[in-house]
Amino acid sequence: MIRIVIIGSGNVAQHLISAFNKSKNIEVIQVFSRKNDLDPCLFPSKKVISDITLLKDADLYIISVTDGAIAEVSENICFNNRLVVHTSGTTSMEILNDKNRKGVFYPLQTFTKGKEVDFNEIPICLETQNDEDYILLEKVAQSISKKAIKISSEQRKAIHVSAVFVCNFVNHLYQIGNEICTENNIPFEILYPLIEETASKIKNLSPVEAQTGPAKRNDTITINSHLNFLSNETYKEIYKLLTKSIIDTHVKEL
Amino acid sequence: MIRIVIIGSGNVAQHLISAFNKSKNIEVIQVFSRKNDLDPCLFPSKKVISDITLLKDADLYIISVTDGAIAEVSENICFNNRLVVHTSGTTSMEILNDKNRKGVFYPLQTFTKGKEVDFNEIPICLETQNDEDYILLEKVAQSISKKAIKISSEQRKAIHVSAVFVCNFVNHLYQIGNEICTENNIPFEILYPLIEETASKIKNLSPVEAQTGPAKRNDTITINSHLNFLSNETYKEIYKLLTKSIIDTHVKEL
Repeated sequence: MIRIVIIGSGNVAQHLISAFNKSKNIEVIQVFSRKNDLDPCLFPSKKVISDITLLKDADLYIISVTDGAIAEVSENICFNNRLVVHTSGTTSMEILNDKNRKGVFYPLQTFTKGKEVDFNEIPICLETQNDEDYILLEKVAQSISKKAIKISSEQRKAIHVSAVFVCNFVNHLYQIGNEICTENNIPFEILYPLIEETASKIKNLSPVEAQTGPAKRNDTITINSHLNFLSNETYKEIYKLLTKSIIDTHVKEL
Repeated sequence: MIRIVIIGSGNVAQHLISAFNKSKNIEVIQVFSRKNDLDPCLFPSKKVISDITLLKDADLYIISVTDGAIAEVSENICFNNRLVVHTSGTTSMEILNDKNRKGVFYPLQTFTKGKEVDFNEIPICLETQNDEDYILLEKVAQSISKKAIKISSEQRKAIHVSAVFVCNFVNHLYQIGNEICTENNIPFEILYPLIEETASKIKNLSPVEAQTGPAKRNDTITINSHLNFLSNETYKEIYKLLTKSIIDTHVKEL
């Protein structure tokens, strides 16, 4: 049995606790939550601490707090030479305090409060300083997911930047679509099949091959008619810039 | 049996022919293809014409050609007072020639050559000049899809602009993510679960609620580190503009 302490109680921490609860080889023996606001159905209150000096000894400490707080929290761990990892996509492994062995345990997914996700399908990006720790961390990752992957800090940064494009920015484009529909009394649901197909077809075609639409065709009549239609200046700018970028890509191609 | 002539042999036309082939109430009696390049497995060659003066009489003519060619093609139909519709998202119904009754039959989906789609789930946006024609057009739409919807030309334009954001532009963001991964020796597949979850979670949460990431948190350290990481100037501009737009939205919210 691998004994884990989780430090943090945000979105990612809660989803991890929930996944570890279902695993046979892992026991979460303690959770540190500054605000002490964890749902007792998720984790027994008596094992939650809000004073970091009460940390128990464990095989692995998973720090899942905001990026800016990782360094300080890792400094406050009152043990030496333990394996301490963070769950951040952007933060280097090196930021962790030198008194302990360092690692990263980054689940590549967007977590939303109250929405269950299938952890089994989530890639978990792993990094450690030494091979022995990697074996342990891989065991932990494999106990909740089919997809444990060795990823360097530099690669992890590239993944995180990509993730901002394909998740955070994509979601914002959904929001713009939603606003335009609502303003014109169209149920946003009408776009669900299109959204799904767009997300699904890149599994069979590269995104360059999958590109369609007025920008791809350099159809200036439609592009201008859309720009006239848009009243929000920022959305107009987004339309122009993405159109230009698509045109550039497909001209390059020829 | 409703007898249809399809004018055009592009992506949308081919997917329509394939869907009508499976319908019991519809017979596609003829297809006009300028290049005469239709796959004979999709439609029998002897019923394909490349001379528009050979058009047969039918209950419905579906014009599925590029937007710029719709007006001219509709003028060349050698019949009067027939029901003639186009399949365009952006073009007004009025552009069709006055000698025939006008309508629109716009399937709201992204069609890719060689990739089958489930037509049953595709919303079909319908518009006609008179109620009688609407009944016929709705019957045709319902023979291939569960989702026939009455949509005015003005609403259709709004839908098409939204569709550009949630489909064409989203696909371009996938492409940027793909490029960043490839440059850093990361398999793009690692992002599939994230892409899927992002597309799926807006069915339970509004896109505003579903927003996550550094821009939403106004996390300037991460944002600047990502901007430093990006070498492509256009992608840097896209990152800045979308980040600004997300920050504006969520500041407005407070």
